Amino acid sequence: MAAAADGFRALDEAALVEYIKATPALRAQLGEQLEGLAIEEVGDGNLNFVYIVAGPAGSFVIKQAIPYVRCIGTSWPLTKERAYFESLALKEHGSLCPNHVPQVYHFDRPMSLIAMRYLEPPHIILRKGLIAGIEYPLLAQHMSDFLARTLFFTSLLYHATLEHRHAVAEFCGNAELCRLTEQVVFSDPYKVAQYNRWTSPHLDHDVEAIRDDDILKIEVAELKSMFCERAQALIHGDLHTGSIMVTSDSTQVIDPEFAFYGPMGFDIGAFLGNLILAFFSQDGHADKDNDRMVYKQWILRTIEETWNLFHHKFVSLWNENFDGHGEAYLVDIYNKPELQLLVQKKYMTNLFHDALGFGAAKMIRRIVGVAHVEDFESISDETKRASCERRALDCAKTILKERRKFETIRQVISVVQEISAP
Amino acid sequence: MAAAADGFRALDEAALVEYIKATPALRAQLGEQLEGLAIEEVGDGNLNFVYIVAGPAGSFVIKQAIPYVRCIGTSWPLTKERAYFESLALKEHGSLCPNHVPQVYHFDRPMSLIAMRYLEPPHIILRKGLIAGIEYPLLAQHMSDFLARTLFFTSLLYHATLEHRHAVAEFCGNAELCRLTEQVVFSDPYKVAQYNRWTSPHLDHDVEAIRDDDILKIEVAELKSMFCERAQALIHGDLHTGSIMVTSDSTQVIDPEFAFYGPMGFDIGAFLGNLILAFFSQDGHADKDNDRMVYKQWILRTIEETWNLFHHKFVSLWNENFDGHGEAYLVDIYNKPELQLLVQKKYMTNLFHDALGFGAAKMIRRIVGVAHVEDFESISDETKRASCERRALDCAKTILKERRKFETIRQVISVVQEISAP
Repeated sequence: MAAAADGFRALDEAALVEYIKATPALRAQLGEQLEGLAIEEVGDGNLNFVYIVAGPAGSFVIKQAIPYVRCIGTSWPLTKERAYFESLALKEHGSLCPNHVPQVYHFDRPMSLIAMRYLEPPHIILRKGLIAGIEYPLLAQHMSDFLARTLFFTSLLYHATLEHRHAVAEFCGNAELCRLTEQVVFSDPYKVAQYNRWTSPHLDHDVEAIRDDDILKIEVAELKSMFCERAQALIHGDLHTGSIMVTSDSTQVIDPEFAFYGPMGFDIGAFLGNLILAFFSQDGHADKDNDRMVYKQWILRTIEETWNLFHHKFVSLWNENFDGHGEAYLVDIYNKPELQLLVQKKYMTNLFHDALGFGAAKMIRRIVGVAHVEDFESISDETKRASCERRALDCAKTILKERRKFETIRQVISVVQEISAP
Repeated sequence: MAAAADGFRALDEAALVEYIKATPALRAQLGEQLEGLAIEEVGDGNLNFVYIVAGPAGSFVIKQAIPYVRCIGTSWPLTKERAYFESLALKEHGSLCPNHVPQVYHFDRPMSLIAMRYLEPPHIILRKGLIAGIEYPLLAQHMSDFLARTLFFTSLLYHATLEHRHAVAEFCGNAELCRLTEQVVFSDPYKVAQYNRWTSPHLDHDVEAIRDDDILKIEVAELKSMFCERAQALIHGDLHTGSIMVTSDSTQVIDPEFAFYGPMGFDIGAFLGNLILAFFSQDGHADKDNDRMVYKQWILRTIEETWNLFHHKFVSLWNENFDGHGEAYLVDIYNKPELQLLVQKKYMTNLFHDALGFGAAKMIRRIVGVAHVEDFESISDETKRASCERRALDCAKTILKERRKFETIRQVISVVQEISAP
């Protein structure tokens, strides 16, 4: 395919080989051994093409954005500039949390192409591991690390306001991807929309109830405004369990093409909300060999530990940097331990409630909106699937509407357990 | 003075004449009659040089930003790029509310120079009118117009999110001016700071009490975060009574060099807070001919009418545009009159509380921070001045800390009256 005027051309495998041969950084990554390259297209996401490239002396992944939503087609155009913001976020988050973000080897802006570390087997997408019922004992530890470090160090708790506004301006350029989130998370699920789908007819009444739930819609409007207006930190923007690759001892966060300066709670909530979805899907995966009861407990423990560890690590980073150059709380003003404690308690409580609100909104959209999750989709018995989905939906609505009443993650888990009880 | 490498040179009167002669837009504005120009430097603000240029067939004002804070000197540098953002805001707000914003004739970015309409006598700075005890019967009507139109049409109630983020990014460039506000409004008054001053020794204990008021400081932190993070609308950013010129039938908002996408309440609060300062200063201006009691009632009425008219006009604009392209509340979702009412009530209540918080913070900083107001400064009897200032300070602290309890502007005015009662 010939290059467009802007230098872009979508690569197929043959063209990719030529591209690699012509790109010194990629040749070097392969140890200059370009014979016998194995190339495999593995993009199972909604948006991009992803190739694994492996040679005898090195490997990497090539991710190329195309100018439309892959799972819908050219009828839903989407800027390929998202690759630029993905590369920026990978580099920024990678520098803050190198253990949990794949290294970027090469970025080509006209081609919307990123070359990055190949996450070798046994890395799999976390969502698939959750469906398979695999425990990841370090997941909460790793994800709380990632969340605490990426969010703290890109917030005004660490940034001076000048550098913050400069970074905010740069990521305002990713507005088109933000707009997609605004539509599919905060708008479409609450109205009749072309691409909405759900397990029908089982959930028809539930979907209608959402569209008629005034309290829910008022709360969602508040979350949407916060998403659109509040530049709190550089967030991943799409931190569900399909954006995380895992082994028993490695956790890698990928695909930050939705990254921008937004509310921290959106990332925390995305991860926790998708774990709750995984929890509610387990009954659909239970069989006579494995009733998944132990696994469900592990998921709940992981939710609890993730928030509690995040809280601890985030506040620790704050304490270590209280007299740093962050400008939200100047140490000359917030100058006593008891005042610092009060300030932190208020901040963390608000953040907790934001995370619950956004997490619940992300749950709802995965059941009644355009993009569903394999956790439920892989339950072939529709009645069983609908039953799992309905409980998740009820749980999400409760959390979203009542979020300000929760003081601890344990209380949230109690609600999850109550709703899941037969 | 020779031009710097960036094309900037500070103009004196002689250089200004040469500049005008060489600039077609300015020559045209003077009807090409360049003989006998009267030029007067009138900049009494803290930051810039301002010249009135009048010829036999036309006139204008030239405002030139210099790269430091004029009232402090070169020891406090400040980007002259502020003139660029001022010109942008004048044009944007001017297009939305032409009756209350002076027309821009010419902008020269390298020179940081704006030529705009000369607001001819009897226009005076509103603050001077308030000190003189002059009633402006249309002030509430005009300012509620300005606030409703400039804030509504630059918010997500009218903007699509793409255009909003694009505009937000542009104004992130004005970060240095935002930073000045952050320092002098939200930080310095609450700590020991070099340029802080107050009527001493009278208010020494009051200043100390502010630095020791944990509740106040926690609330101020929340306001500061909102100022730094929330891109709600294109705000003027410095809308005190010194940024407004008036006659009995004209109200003109000038000097938006602090403009950026920030919280709407900051503008509304700046105006209302400065009216409350004017109110508390009246006892210091009373004499045997005029006890100012009637005038104080007029100020309170103006505060009440400004908010109530703003509320009415803002909601009216919202209703007129509910099915427009604003993306905060899609009409397909917020699809019933009673739901729209609920949404608006919540929005306006939050905005009211934001305005009270920011207004109170602006009052405090004018009494204990670097930049004071002539309302108080012109009270030569220090004891009398301190007494006025202390009441204003107590009022501001109460409003700031208790703002969420207020449901109507009348309730706020009751607090003002109680605190002002002898």
